[in-house]
Amino acid sequence: MNFKKRLVTPGPTPVPEQIMSATARPMIHHRSPEFEELFRRVNENLCYLFQTKQNVITLCSSGTGAMEAAVANLLSPGDEVLYVNGGKFGERWGEICRSYRANAVELQVEWGESVAPEKIAEHLRARSDTKAVFVTHSETSTGAAIDIKEIARVVRENSNAVLVADGIASVGVMELRMDDWGIDVVVTGSQKGLMIPPGLTFIALSERAWRFVEDSSLPRYYFDLRRAREALIGNRTPWTPAVSLIVGLDLALRMIRDEGIERVWMRHEVLGCAIREGCRALGLKLVARCASNALTAVWIPHLVEAKRFFATLKSGMGITLAGGQGQLMGKIFRISHLGYFDLLDAISIVSAVETALRASGWTCEPGAGVRAAQTVLNEKSLL
Amino acid sequence: MNFKKRLVTPGPTPVPEQIMSATARPMIHHRSPEFEELFRRVNENLCYLFQTKQNVITLCSSGTGAMEAAVANLLSPGDEVLYVNGGKFGERWGEICRSYRANAVELQVEWGESVAPEKIAEHLRARSDTKAVFVTHSETSTGAAIDIKEIARVVRENSNAVLVADGIASVGVMELRMDDWGIDVVVTGSQKGLMIPPGLTFIALSERAWRFVEDSSLPRYYFDLRRAREALIGNRTPWTPAVSLIVGLDLALRMIRDEGIERVWMRHEVLGCAIREGCRALGLKLVARCASNALTAVWIPHLVEAKRFFATLKSGMGITLAGGQGQLMGKIFRISHLGYFDLLDAISIVSAVETALRASGWTCEPGAGVRAAQTVLNEKSLL
Repeated sequence: MNFKKRLVTPGPTPVPEQIMSATARPMIHHRSPEFEELFRRVNENLCYLFQTKQNVITLCSSGTGAMEAAVANLLSPGDEVLYVNGGKFGERWGEICRSYRANAVELQVEWGESVAPEKIAEHLRARSDTKAVFVTHSETSTGAAIDIKEIARVVRENSNAVLVADGIASVGVMELRMDDWGIDVVVTGSQKGLMIPPGLTFIALSERAWRFVEDSSLPRYYFDLRRAREALIGNRTPWTPAVSLIVGLDLALRMIRDEGIERVWMRHEVLGCAIREGCRALGLKLVARCASNALTAVWIPHLVEAKRFFATLKSGMGITLAGGQGQLMGKIFRISHLGYFDLLDAISIVSAVETALRASGWTCEPGAGVRAAQTVLNEKSLL
Repeated sequence: MNFKKRLVTPGPTPVPEQIMSATARPMIHHRSPEFEELFRRVNENLCYLFQTKQNVITLCSSGTGAMEAAVANLLSPGDEVLYVNGGKFGERWGEICRSYRANAVELQVEWGESVAPEKIAEHLRARSDTKAVFVTHSETSTGAAIDIKEIARVVRENSNAVLVADGIASVGVMELRMDDWGIDVVVTGSQKGLMIPPGLTFIALSERAWRFVEDSSLPRYYFDLRRAREALIGNRTPWTPAVSLIVGLDLALRMIRDEGIERVWMRHEVLGCAIREGCRALGLKLVARCASNALTAVWIPHLVEAKRFFATLKSGMGITLAGGQGQLMGKIFRISHLGYFDLLDAISIVSAVETALRASGWTCEPGAGVRAAQTVLNEKSLL
């Protein structure tokens, strides 16, 4: 009886209809006053999104491209860096750093756990040559979030390293104040909190990080941030930008600005809380102890037939939900609730999960999930 | 009295309305049977477009990103390479190679001229250590084309170097048979002959070139072609792809396949010929001696007020035409006629150029341009 398609994956996330239509407008040239005016507005609103006075640079790539841009622009071969591996995306920082011949030291955290800032502080005190610390604000593979504000503080107080945050699944989702909190580099992507199709990424650097860029001797051209910064003076990009996506971005940023960034963060907090409480009320266990408001990763109980669970969601209810990645493959499901996602969507998805669980061998009190989610909405409603 | 907007720039080129609508469809997930089936078809049709049996790899970047992918995957620091600089995009090969510490030797060609294959042969005989030759099939800054078939032959016969062709403005425009002609690496982009918005690029490698990839010691991660090739086995990409653009690409490739690649090449030949004859009949001189069928670069006569010419086109006729780049800035205009461009568009643009020239101080026989263009169409019409 359900026939709508619902994309509940942590990137690409659903794109608002009006943004999709905007991306389909007739093509404009990127060296035109029309584009430059649009891009000027985009750049201003990106600063608001990142809560920074620094330039936010728009790249045409997947999120991994912007992560690579951070590495290739900040480091030199042989530099010692620290990265926190608490999931697939933390692990990726290490892979990229090693590809670029950095001496990448891993701080391993059990998947689902969040690094204790003090662990980073200890490491930095012991290894004073550490040049950069790479972390993942919201780890999409586990649904865990880190205390990025506190980490920024301890990095600053215990070292001369720059702090580089993968904010791909957190910018426009969870509170992140780049300048106030002193995060040196923030990276994000288009297909998450920004609600537009994949294909654009963004990176902003503190003044201190820009000085690292001058000293870096790693090869880069397409991702050379100095070129991009220079082009920004004329509201341009060094290479042909993904024009249609930037037209959509302009609209998305205006939607975020209209809602207000604090309210966007608050909405995600309510969403995360409602979904977590809904899942707990269904008797489920969450993967992350300190949960991200971008997505909720849930252990699939042994009594549940995982295949049947996903199939019921997909064919019976038109819902695409993500499974586990890497070592969590087959063991978890992940409910995405970032971007174009509202309070009623949270209720729907908890309802769908209950129905699919019930069809796959799980028993629970009827309606316990949606009741718990509703209670959160009643208490924290933004209406 | 003209009120339609016409984008006559050599990338982004106009996008067919049905493709724009396709890119605006509700977002789908890239790890879904639906996407994988679509991407399988895309990959098959990309092989047809490139005329190759090799994998064609789709990257999310601007054209420059795919050029960098070629360099970073084929070479090692210190390798000697040859690049032909006959314009801004030829020059870029040199810049990228140097960024990656290759010993890049320039074969300079006057802008507007096309390199003589024999010059390349001579160089390769003298410098037998040359590992790769980088050329630009259609040089967008000057409108010149090279004899890529003959160049492939002389590179093969005179060296062990791989030939790398920037086909960004030629694939889907001018005859290019990667396998038959023995071109080792071909790179192209989405916003040219492929008629879709910018944001995707494509690269194919011969078996011999893949062996270079194994030996290369340059750092790369996002652009690591081995990862992309591996992911292709499952009709996937290693990173989140630009889904909406790939949906548009699928449609564009099917349009090209329906028209037939030989007819696509022929259409561009007629278009190029009609526009060149139209311009000549207006008393104008062309920049390129051996002209590309992607665009026509024309010297702005001294008697013509350039500013007025462009302003008349833009505000009076809604036409965005490109000016010159680099050393040709202010000296030329460039008429684009690649991608979603048909025979009647050729007549319209010659008409607009005559009107704008006339408004900017130029005198010529009334209607001489469109008459000449029409004559070409009569002779070579594909109808």
